[in-house]
Amino acid sequence: MSDGILVVNAGSSSIKVKLYAIDDADLVPLLSGGMSGIGSAPLLSVTDGNGAVLEERRFEPGEIADASAAQHQLADWFSRHGSAESIIAVGHRVVHGGPDFAEPVLVDDAVLRRLETFIPLAPLHQLGNLDPIRVLRQRRPDLPQVACFDTAFHRGHPELADRFALPRFLHGEGVRRYGFHGLSFEYVAGRLRDLAPGTADGRVVVAHLGSGASLCALKAGRSQETTMSFTALDGLPMGTRCGALDPGVVLHLIEHKGMTPAEIGHMLYRESGLLGLSGLSNDVRTLLASDRPEAAMAVAYFCRRVAQATAALAVTLGGLDAFVFTAGIGENAPEIRRRIIAELGWAGLILSNDANRSGAARLDAEGSRAQIWIVPTDEERMIARHTMRLLGRTAPGAAA
Amino acid sequence: MSDGILVVNAGSSSIKVKLYAIDDADLVPLLSGGMSGIGSAPLLSVTDGNGAVLEERRFEPGEIADASAAQHQLADWFSRHGSAESIIAVGHRVVHGGPDFAEPVLVDDAVLRRLETFIPLAPLHQLGNLDPIRVLRQRRPDLPQVACFDTAFHRGHPELADRFALPRFLHGEGVRRYGFHGLSFEYVAGRLRDLAPGTADGRVVVAHLGSGASLCALKAGRSQETTMSFTALDGLPMGTRCGALDPGVVLHLIEHKGMTPAEIGHMLYRESGLLGLSGLSNDVRTLLASDRPEAAMAVAYFCRRVAQATAALAVTLGGLDAFVFTAGIGENAPEIRRRIIAELGWAGLILSNDANRSGAARLDAEGSRAQIWIVPTDEERMIARHTMRLLGRTAPGAAA
Repeated sequence: MSDGILVVNAGSSSIKVKLYAIDDADLVPLLSGGMSGIGSAPLLSVTDGNGAVLEERRFEPGEIADASAAQHQLADWFSRHGSAESIIAVGHRVVHGGPDFAEPVLVDDAVLRRLETFIPLAPLHQLGNLDPIRVLRQRRPDLPQVACFDTAFHRGHPELADRFALPRFLHGEGVRRYGFHGLSFEYVAGRLRDLAPGTADGRVVVAHLGSGASLCALKAGRSQETTMSFTALDGLPMGTRCGALDPGVVLHLIEHKGMTPAEIGHMLYRESGLLGLSGLSNDVRTLLASDRPEAAMAVAYFCRRVAQATAALAVTLGGLDAFVFTAGIGENAPEIRRRIIAELGWAGLILSNDANRSGAARLDAEGSRAQIWIVPTDEERMIARHTMRLLGRTAPGAAA
Repeated sequence: MSDGILVVNAGSSSIKVKLYAIDDADLVPLLSGGMSGIGSAPLLSVTDGNGAVLEERRFEPGEIADASAAQHQLADWFSRHGSAESIIAVGHRVVHGGPDFAEPVLVDDAVLRRLETFIPLAPLHQLGNLDPIRVLRQRRPDLPQVACFDTAFHRGHPELADRFALPRFLHGEGVRRYGFHGLSFEYVAGRLRDLAPGTADGRVVVAHLGSGASLCALKAGRSQETTMSFTALDGLPMGTRCGALDPGVVLHLIEHKGMTPAEIGHMLYRESGLLGLSGLSNDVRTLLASDRPEAAMAVAYFCRRVAQATAALAVTLGGLDAFVFTAGIGENAPEIRRRIIAELGWAGLILSNDANRSGAARLDAEGSRAQIWIVPTDEERMIARHTMRLLGRTAPGAAA
């Protein structure tokens, strides 16, 4: 049996895991699984590398009340099915690496304590990310675990892209533009280098458009600026998140509508974005299929904001050599791609409608001033790669 | 003695007034004056149309505790000096016209009550704007008074530019992108039509860059979108205001730093922007003269954000035919103009360095893809014009 790398992506109410076999230097997906509905309608499911269902098991809400309980169940399943012994390391998606971590890191007690200090920066997610690390450290104290951060890829930003126009002491206290989706942007930047090395050396905007959405401006493959900032609320409107919002609105909701910060947070994270605009759905497929004017407006709003943010990042880059779509909407919604590029027509971007409809890798038409690509993202593979790399560095031979 | 129009621009701690004589259809400035330091170090000052000082009088803080007391003192001065009788109407700058007022309006009891309902939308300013109206209605109940709104010019916005990606009911409750500086943009749009009628019919971004700063996208002279939104905090960083800020920062400051909404509001309005970034000054002249890296960073930050917001508005307009500088910084800071246009070089804007240094009206160099202009603004004159126009409509012959 090949050595395996387990990737763990824990959210606030779900954990997803993926087991890769190390086959020479490649990574072959063996098992995908997870626990959804933690605390509400827990469902453990596992499929094999071809998508065939190996397990589907429901639990009572009280049985799986938190991420720790979910991680124990998943680990038990792997043990019972003989997959646990092959795992030589675990890579975790951790939303926040704070100002410190510009790279993935092998987790030890000191690192774990440091990561706990970032909980106030991402209260919903960071706790859920760290629980599975603790569980696996209890179960297998000798197993190397690697934390891979959504923020790390952006840590080389120039100062202009890292600051808010706030009193300087707040930057020192950690109120800064961290950016997220870094594992996705890093993966896509790497893939673009495989596909078009010359382009990857230039000025590129990558649009990660999924239920979360952000743009990243890359120069020679390195992040220069991104639309999410201190939190994953900022920048583009998303499925249920508001994107950029006048800070005066938050103060108004507190002072004149008597809302609590928790109520406002819930609304801005869960009830806004496409869902709030349309009053109908957070899903662009539903909105595109609807004939209601609110649905059309929400779609137009999303495409406009993506195009506007792209133009703003072109200022940072001093121009644009390529625009790249990735993630759920970016990879699968040709109508959204068409509209975004149409909004950028004044800047010389021209889409090939045929290539766009067929979902080809390269989408720009003859005469377009910038290339246009679809590059499917794969954050789990990026985490597995980082984990292998850190094993190779810190435990020579372990990844052989 | 010619009939006169008095313009009143009341802020939270000062009132400025300007008396125009109606000379045929033109408006000739006769007197400028005001009360500064209301409640702290009140100073009444008046100059004539040539800037010669006619009065400078200090008061104890308790004597002029609020805008009402200040307005009484100013009215007394005009009465004592024989200017009051000539005034046939008063035009007031009123920051907020809410969702209703797309035009200036003659104030009666019903209008005044409606304007009071907008106080929660701009607590600092709206109260100070309305107090002088009330004082003058007491003193001269028959004198026509006109309210001219900072928001009105933006009320024809397409829906995309008027909404946040928030639940729809909030828009209905008034949480929308109002925009400000409308009197300035309207004046500049009119001047541009005089200077270059063909250009004014096109796609224009006007940059009002003063201690407050915002951009307005104009198509054929009508506002399409603007960078300030629900409050005058949003959009560009300003002298002491933060500009666009992740709403998650506001929630963080409340939940994890224990700040009150009032403390946050004070910080975002008074201690942020160029002052916060530099830790030094809110004045670009001071920052440009400084050799401290924080000062250079603050200036670079400001210019970058102006250029980014311009590019975003070019998306809305589908291109850019002209870029116009106005207000204190826009009219008087060639180095800031140079840097902003340099950031837009990738979009084809080219500045004539000679024209820029000399402060000419037209600044674009041969080959620039968009015209570049300086058009000095004059909000008081815009208010006086609106006031004349409303008199002509509602009290025929009064303006003769």
